[in-house]
Amino acid sequence: MKLYDNRRAPNPRRVRIFLAEKGITVPSVQVDLLAREQKSESFRRKNSLGSVPVLELDDGECIAESVAICRYLEELQPEPALFGRDARERAQVEMWNRRLELGLLVPVGQVWIHGSPHTAKLVKQVPAAAEFNRGVIARFLRWLDGELAASKFVAGERYSVADITGLCTLDFATVLVGISIDSTLSHLSRWHAAVAGRPSAQA
Amino acid sequence: MKLYDNRRAPNPRRVRIFLAEKGITVPSVQVDLLAREQKSESFRRKNSLGSVPVLELDDGECIAESVAICRYLEELQPEPALFGRDARERAQVEMWNRRLELGLLVPVGQVWIHGSPHTAKLVKQVPAAAEFNRGVIARFLRWLDGELAASKFVAGERYSVADITGLCTLDFATVLVGISIDSTLSHLSRWHAAVAGRPSAQA
Repeated sequence: MKLYDNRRAPNPRRVRIFLAEKGITVPSVQVDLLAREQKSESFRRKNSLGSVPVLELDDGECIAESVAICRYLEELQPEPALFGRDARERAQVEMWNRRLELGLLVPVGQVWIHGSPHTAKLVKQVPAAAEFNRGVIARFLRWLDGELAASKFVAGERYSVADITGLCTLDFATVLVGISIDSTLSHLSRWHAAVAGRPSAQA
Repeated sequence: MKLYDNRRAPNPRRVRIFLAEKGITVPSVQVDLLAREQKSESFRRKNSLGSVPVLELDDGECIAESVAICRYLEELQPEPALFGRDARERAQVEMWNRRLELGLLVPVGQVWIHGSPHTAKLVKQVPAAAEFNRGVIARFLRWLDGELAASKFVAGERYSVADITGLCTLDFATVLVGISIDSTLSHLSRWHAAVAGRPSAQA
C-alpha cells in the first residue's frame, strides 16, 4: 500500500492520525498541492477528482476520500476499533463523525474557499459567504461545547474517528483558515487538549 | 423502532428508499418542518441538532443522520448489501457516497440556503453564494457524467447507497431547489432514469 499525502492539508492528516492510532505504517508520497500536482493527468488516474489523500493498494486499485481509506484500514486491522465495537456504537460514531463533517468541516471549508488569501487566485471568492459560515461555525461550536459537557470524547466515552475529524478540522480552522475559537467554550478546549495531546496528533 | 420522517425533505427519503430496497418496514412519524417541530424541545431530546431523520430504537436510544441510520439497518439485515459486500467494495461505496455528498449534496444545500424563497425568512441569504454553488454543481455533474459513461451505477456494477444519495440529491435539486440539469449529460440521465425507475424510488 502507498498513501498519497500532503503535510499541510487537513484530510490527509485524518488518515495519518488514524494510522498512528492503529500502529500501522504505510509508505507515503507527498503530493505538492501548491504546484497543483493533484490536478495532473497522472494523479487524476488515481483519483479523477484530483484530491488527496489517496490510498493505492498493491494491485493499483485506488481508494480516495479520507473516511473511505480509514474504514478500509479498520477492516484490515480492527483493533483498536475507531469506528465503534458493535452495531449501536458504530451507528453513534458514524452519526458523530458526520455531524462534525457536515456541521463543522464543511463550513470551515467554505471560509477557506471564500475568505482565505491562499484560495483567492483559484476561485471567484464571495466574502459574504465566508462571513456567513463564520456564524455557522460559532453556533456549531457552542452546541458542541454543550454536548462535550456530558462526554469525554465526541462520540461518548471512547476515542473514535469522530475525534480525529474534530481535531483536524479545528486545527485547520485556527492555523490555516484564521478562525478564532471562543475561549469560554471550556468543554471544547478540555476535549481539544486531550486529543491534541495524544502521540497520534503529531502524525 | 420508529422513524422520524418528513415526506418532502431529501435526507429522510434516503432512509425510506434504503428501507424499501431492504424490504424492511418501520413505523414512522411525520415531523412538521414548516412548523419547525424539529426544533422543539421534545424533539431535541431525540436529536439535539434538531433535524430529521431520526431512528428511535425500542429502548429509546436515538440515531440521527441518514447514513448512520442506513448503516445500522445494514447491520441488522445485511442483504441485499447496499454498502458493499467485502472490504474493497465497501471502500469504493464509501468513497462514492462521500463524493456525492460533499461534491453534490453540500453545494445543492448551499443553493437551497442562499437561493430559495423557502429559506429566505430563516437566514440572511447570500445570493452570490447560491450562484457560486450553481457553478460547482454544474462542473461536478459534468465530471459525474463522464464517470457514469464507464459504470452502470455510481459505485460500479451494483446498486448501492451511493445511488440513493445521488437520486435524492438530484431530485431535491431539480424539484425543490429549482436547479436545472444539463440535458446533454446523457450518461447521467440514463443512470437517473434507471434508479428513479426502481420501485424503491416511490418510498
